[in-house]
Amino acid sequence: MPTEEFKIVFQPSGSEVFVLPGTPLLEAAVRAGIVLNSPCGGTGQCGKCRVRITAGLANLADARTGLEGQADTEPGACLACVARANGPMTVTIPESSLFESRHNILTGDTGLRAALDPLVRKAAFELPPPSGQDPRSDEQRLRDGFGSDLLLPSTILRELPGFLRTNEWRGTAVLHGNRLVGLEPGHASRPPYGLALDIGTTTVVATLIDLASGQEKAVAGALNGQRDMGDDVLSRILRVRENPANLAVLQQAVRDTINGLIQAVTRRARIEPRDIHDVVAAGNTAMQQLLCGYDPSALGERPFAPVFQRGHALPCTELGLDTHPQAQLHVFPQIGGFVGGDTLAGILAACLDRHQEPFLFVDIGTNGEIVAGENGKMLATSVAAGPAFEGARIVQGMCAVPGAIEKTLLENDVHVNVIGNVAPSGLCGTGLIDTAAEMLRLGILDETGRILTGAELPASLPAALRDRVVDENGQPCLELVRAGEHADGPAVRLRQKDIRELQLATAAVRAGIGILLRQAELDLAEIGEILVAGGFGNFIRRRNAVRIGLLPAVPLDRIRFIGNAASLGAKRALLSLRERAAAETICRTVRHVDLSLDPAFQNEFGEAMIFPCI
Amino acid sequence: MPTEEFKIVFQPSGSEVFVLPGTPLLEAAVRAGIVLNSPCGGTGQCGKCRVRITAGLANLADARTGLEGQADTEPGACLACVARANGPMTVTIPESSLFESRHNILTGDTGLRAALDPLVRKAAFELPPPSGQDPRSDEQRLRDGFGSDLLLPSTILRELPGFLRTNEWRGTAVLHGNRLVGLEPGHASRPPYGLALDIGTTTVVATLIDLASGQEKAVAGALNGQRDMGDDVLSRILRVRENPANLAVLQQAVRDTINGLIQAVTRRARIEPRDIHDVVAAGNTAMQQLLCGYDPSALGERPFAPVFQRGHALPCTELGLDTHPQAQLHVFPQIGGFVGGDTLAGILAACLDRHQEPFLFVDIGTNGEIVAGENGKMLATSVAAGPAFEGARIVQGMCAVPGAIEKTLLENDVHVNVIGNVAPSGLCGTGLIDTAAEMLRLGILDETGRILTGAELPASLPAALRDRVVDENGQPCLELVRAGEHADGPAVRLRQKDIRELQLATAAVRAGIGILLRQAELDLAEIGEILVAGGFGNFIRRRNAVRIGLLPAVPLDRIRFIGNAASLGAKRALLSLRERAAAETICRTVRHVDLSLDPAFQNEFGEAMIFPCI
Repeated sequence: MPTEEFKIVFQPSGSEVFVLPGTPLLEAAVRAGIVLNSPCGGTGQCGKCRVRITAGLANLADARTGLEGQADTEPGACLACVARANGPMTVTIPESSLFESRHNILTGDTGLRAALDPLVRKAAFELPPPSGQDPRSDEQRLRDGFGSDLLLPSTILRELPGFLRTNEWRGTAVLHGNRLVGLEPGHASRPPYGLALDIGTTTVVATLIDLASGQEKAVAGALNGQRDMGDDVLSRILRVRENPANLAVLQQAVRDTINGLIQAVTRRARIEPRDIHDVVAAGNTAMQQLLCGYDPSALGERPFAPVFQRGHALPCTELGLDTHPQAQLHVFPQIGGFVGGDTLAGILAACLDRHQEPFLFVDIGTNGEIVAGENGKMLATSVAAGPAFEGARIVQGMCAVPGAIEKTLLENDVHVNVIGNVAPSGLCGTGLIDTAAEMLRLGILDETGRILTGAELPASLPAALRDRVVDENGQPCLELVRAGEHADGPAVRLRQKDIRELQLATAAVRAGIGILLRQAELDLAEIGEILVAGGFGNFIRRRNAVRIGLLPAVPLDRIRFIGNAASLGAKRALLSLRERAAAETICRTVRHVDLSLDPAFQNEFGEAMIFPCI
Repeated sequence: MPTEEFKIVFQPSGSEVFVLPGTPLLEAAVRAGIVLNSPCGGTGQCGKCRVRITAGLANLADARTGLEGQADTEPGACLACVARANGPMTVTIPESSLFESRHNILTGDTGLRAALDPLVRKAAFELPPPSGQDPRSDEQRLRDGFGSDLLLPSTILRELPGFLRTNEWRGTAVLHGNRLVGLEPGHASRPPYGLALDIGTTTVVATLIDLASGQEKAVAGALNGQRDMGDDVLSRILRVRENPANLAVLQQAVRDTINGLIQAVTRRARIEPRDIHDVVAAGNTAMQQLLCGYDPSALGERPFAPVFQRGHALPCTELGLDTHPQAQLHVFPQIGGFVGGDTLAGILAACLDRHQEPFLFVDIGTNGEIVAGENGKMLATSVAAGPAFEGARIVQGMCAVPGAIEKTLLENDVHVNVIGNVAPSGLCGTGLIDTAAEMLRLGILDETGRILTGAELPASLPAALRDRVVDENGQPCLELVRAGEHADGPAVRLRQKDIRELQLATAAVRAGIGILLRQAELDLAEIGEILVAGGFGNFIRRRNAVRIGLLPAVPLDRIRFIGNAASLGAKRALLSLRERAAAETICRTVRHVDLSLDPAFQNEFGEAMIFPCI
């Protein structure tokens, strides 16, 4: 019984997002593509995510602002990590609260206009009609208005003479760069829209953007329809290797997913799919190749050669996407192995190429991508974390949708936060990490990942928690929610085998980080900042991520969550051809590390299966 | 009962042509796209078309070489205008006999290779397979072989991984410029072929060329299938203005004509239509726009604005042409009014842009195109001559095919030359001009174009000729051939109304020449050369063309026939991207003169209806 979503508008960018009651403003901002400063990790301590609610202040949940007791606060001022919305509101973000505001082209009115450089634009025109003194061709007449390098495809030349004469020599041109692709009557036409796609192995996120203003109009996510044909990239590649006809099946699955998202975002923005004139997609190499219909078989065996490296455009009609017929899909450049367009989009979003200090970038998903470097030098690798962080292969795992436990605290008893204020029905990635970390802290879980029972449990464990450790068919598990505990909801349990899945996922990421830092000749102590990205990255509790060994043990203020960096990078490339060009340049500078070639990887992976002693 | 055609091969270009018995070598050369010097007009006087028969000397008709009585002639030497072929032979052309040999890219081995710069080429490749040390993408591997600017469309990226692995990393690439459009296994593939199209209002000529060697492989001509929908461009434009659906009908008609020609030339060269990788088309503005499917309606009213000016490429699949699916059709730039790609192709073929001396260029067809200029400055116009010169609207008119009277001499009686040594069945353009000129010379026709009868005829007229002037339903006509005179052939008559059609056609051309020279501020006496082009241009008797007023009265040695210049220009553009670029530059420098805007045109036209007094 999910509660109705409502709209939050962020100013000055005008970005809009629909959220559920109780959503912290920090999270709403991330979902709208705006990353705020939060060096304290969203705990209300650093005060750097300060924003102002300029409309709908009455919809603030619990009246908590995080600035209680401070003098001279202006009306509506609050910390985005503390303040939570229970209804529609408008939130104004000062420049000082924006993460990397210099480069964030999605926010800040002035910054936006300077950086807005999309492929597609519309331009009104009015031409003098031909006369005896001016017998120029229709083409030349247009060209003299738009510039000599205007390209006119044959399809437009077929339409042009009739259009100009019917519309009395005025209209609006739809331009892809210097290529005229459409003619619309009159001067008051709708802006062109663009779609940024983050094609994850498990989930696909689509963001609809008004390309004239740069404003985000709608965001929607869905499970990748290819999941039926395998949870991870390797199993999907195997399907194609078994039978080449499966390439078309997999391509159609993700196409259907995208077309569904196009329906969702265009309906929400009250436009038509054919108003979408440009699409940018970022995903790992396998996801990108399956989307384009390029055989991924060679990614299934050493040396994991991708089909392409350079970003390029494909006609949307060729891909079967439900957009304007002349729209093109720009697929991101990809580096090699499984390090693909999503990593490049992340580098673009976090401006890693301009980081002077040594950094570590971790994008956590079904495939984990890791980048390490300093001063323009970058190494990148990819690890198969599996879909545990996205809720798959966990018995009661689920995505971060209403009903998912997204936060767990074990004090005297179990305390859980459930998305959407409804009865809990499972755990999402953050809930999984929190629960395991808390179990480790309290000694319910040992370092090898075994759930302890009976006399093995520490004596200090509160009785209520002890009662939660139950047996299920001879296997121990932790009962987070008892059947009927919340309304008529089911029991929610974390099982021994779920912990094993989590161990495999975290070990892969941590081993990858270790190898990559060694190859980059960087010491953990040198790392100025660990940037954590991923669809759910922003909502992980840093302490807990370190506790289970997903992230290395560094002071917590060096860990910064930057949201869905792949999606943000795709949006930047959609809004700016210069960003697209930058991605190509970056692609050529990043060195790809193939972990399978490093003899130390298996050892490192085995060691990382053991939870750290903290 | 047409006689079987046989092959003549020209060296060193290797061009081949199929001709009928009795064809002069000069004419055969023109049909093969090779224009020889013939300042004397092909009368055997100047000796500048000297060639050598290097094989098949026994097939020389009548053993006439034009060099009889000259000492020290090498074996097989002859004048191309005198020597006629009765069977297959090989003819070697010395550089010194070539017209404009410096620029003629279709002839001369060395000249050819320097100028050969086609859009399409094939290139063999062999790549190292991927390894742990060399995990480059398939795309990068290819790019490192072919250059960093190689373009790989998505269709090729789909095919690439399978192709490379099946063919062990070697094959042949088909390249359009730097765009890879096809992959062929192995290294010994067929060369790419190109098709040059001269799209006339009445006839379409297609030339098939091997783009690797530059050699011409076959030529074929056919009536433009649009003829059923109107003899001239204006009537076809009118059909579209009446009903826009007729645009598709007219487009399909010329497409069917071209596809028929593709069948003919590929069959003759023993290749498949899909071996044609590039097409270049030149025609007047209406023909080009109908071919491309661009509405020609605006060409039907002042100020006759064309849809486009710049040359550009269209996918052959979009046009329904039966070629390689990736082939494109390059349509010539066009100047304005009806001065289109054929005129530009003619300028290109005759190198008019490099002419220092004042010149006049006349391309005679259903539409007559006229260019005047000097030293890079050019004015161009177009006149509606009507299809009389191509045999249409003449009661017994026909194209220059077997059975057509192509030459007439009136001495004591009528003497005619018939194409193909068969019984005559009608007149083609040159026969029409010859007959009218002879009738004027002998006083059978007066200056107003009236056929005289009975007592009006000059007393000096031989009785046999006097008997040829007969009455047909009250109208006088000249009976060139009596029924049964040649085998069981029909009577062939030139009627009074045929003379009127001829007057209209010649008057349009002569008035156009007069106005254009005046606007160019050039005096007839200054004109160093009158270059006459057109499908049948090479075979007009110059004296007769001047006699009927089709060409101005200048010393005959200033008139030079250069063959089908539009076709030659299209072939050059097919063989060289530099020539295509030159056509664009030329297009911007030529000034278009709209005769209908010149108040003197109607007067000039009226005066030109009167045959000149010579």
